[in-house]
Amino acid sequence: MSWLPSLKTETPEEGYELAIMLSRMAVKKTQPDDAARERMRPEYANDPANLTQVSLVVATNFQTVAAANNHWR
Amino acid sequence: MSWLPSLKTETPEEGYELAIMLSRMAVKKTQPDDAARERMRPEYANDPANLTQVSLVVATNFQTVAAANNHWR
Amino acid sequence: MSWLPSLKTETPEEGYELAIMLSRMAVKKTQPDDAARERMRPEYANDPANLTQVSLVVATNFQTVAAANNHWR
Amino acid sequence: MSWLPSLKTETPEEGYELAIMLSRMAVKKTQPDDAARERMRPEYANDPANLTQVSLVVATNFQTVAAANNHWR
Amino acid sequence: MSWLPSLKTETPEEGYELAIMLSRMAVKKTQPDDAARERMRPEYANDPANLTQVSLVVATNFQTVAAANNHWR
Amino acid sequence: MSWLPSLKTETPEEGYELAIMLSRMAVKKTQPDDAARERMRPEYANDPANLTQVSLVVATNFQTVAAANNHWR
Repeated sequence: MSWLPSLKTETPEEGYELAIMLSRMAVKKTQPDDAARERMRPEYANDPANLTQVSLVVATNFQTVAAANNHWR
Repeated sequence: MSWLPSLKTETPEEGYELAIMLSRMAVKKTQPDDAARERMRPEYANDPANLTQVSLVVATNFQTVAAANNHWR
Repeated sequence: MSWLPSLKTETPEEGYELAIMLSRMAVKKTQPDDAARERMRPEYANDPANLTQVSLVVATNFQTVAAANNHWR
Repeated sequence: MSWLPSLKTETPEEGYELAIMLSRMAVKKTQPDDAARERMRPEYANDPANLTQVSLVVATNFQTVAAANNHWR
Repeated sequence: MSWLPSLKTETPEEGYELAIMLSRMAVKKTQPDDAARERMRPEYANDPANLTQVSLVVATNFQTVAAANNHWR
Repeated sequence: MSWLPSLKTETPEEGYELAIMLSRMAVKKTQPDDAARERMRPEYANDPANLTQVSLVVATNFQTVAAANNHWR
């Protein structure tokens, strides 16, 4: 089964969760080694600058998901 | 209750507040440990480069919220 | 009175000024301490890398304002 | 044959793979030396900050692909 | 007279020049001291990372100008 | 003759090449000294972080070119 069958979600909140998943997937596809990602996790989640950039990625993906859902209008 | 029931807001100012909330939520979802975020807070809010990037995240989310509200036309 | 009653402006130039105001507001909301922002100001305005990023934030907000004004067509 | 005959894909998942390909192509066109890119690979894939930025690039290209596919509506 | 009477340009090339002007204006408005900007100029124009970011700002502003001109269709 | 007579291209691949040209032009306009750019080239093309950002610039310009071509629909 596809990990991304559709960009449609029931609610904005689920759309935001999908944006987070899209953001993490690119990291996983670039660094497929689970152990390597696990080793980076503490640095990833404890560096303010990185957390801000993660938020920028989520915001960019959320634009896509929101548009695909016609902003849940 | 959902933390994001809708992207609709009454006014542009409320839309801007929603953009800030969206920006912070991605940080919280990436680093869910409240104490860890609290420890980063001084660095987060006192580094000019980070503050500029935070503003970029808010600007990106504000694009989404403004579009969802048809720019409050 | 609201600091952001509307995204509509008479001219592109006023729209650009609004984009600057939107960019600064996110910094102010993240670091509400006036004295702290004042202390960062020299670093903020004298670091080429930061100035470039500030310009990116303004460009992003200007996209929103320009779209809200139908690009002043 | 073209490496990019179309932006159309059957599914969102294939669209995401296309976004990754677009993201890598710019690196390849900027640094066409395969050996040079290979030497950078460990640093590229093990620096949390870089991985986050890679995810931002993919998100930006995914916006384009999703729009080209009418968000797979 | 306004420095930005309109986003309309005759040609894409003039639109690109306008995007560069928009990008520089935000720097000027953030650091209005001409001498300070002049001192930063060598660092600004000789740091590869900064030049890349300048190009990102121009690309973002060019999106706005191109949309305002209906992509010169 | 103009270096940018139009944003229209025959194919997506040519559109991607145009996006690369747009990305490089901003660097050239900011640092017009050919020798200076040449000196930066090794650093520019061998720093993973910079290559990722170059890819972000290309992605942003590709959005513009793709939209101008109606995504080659």
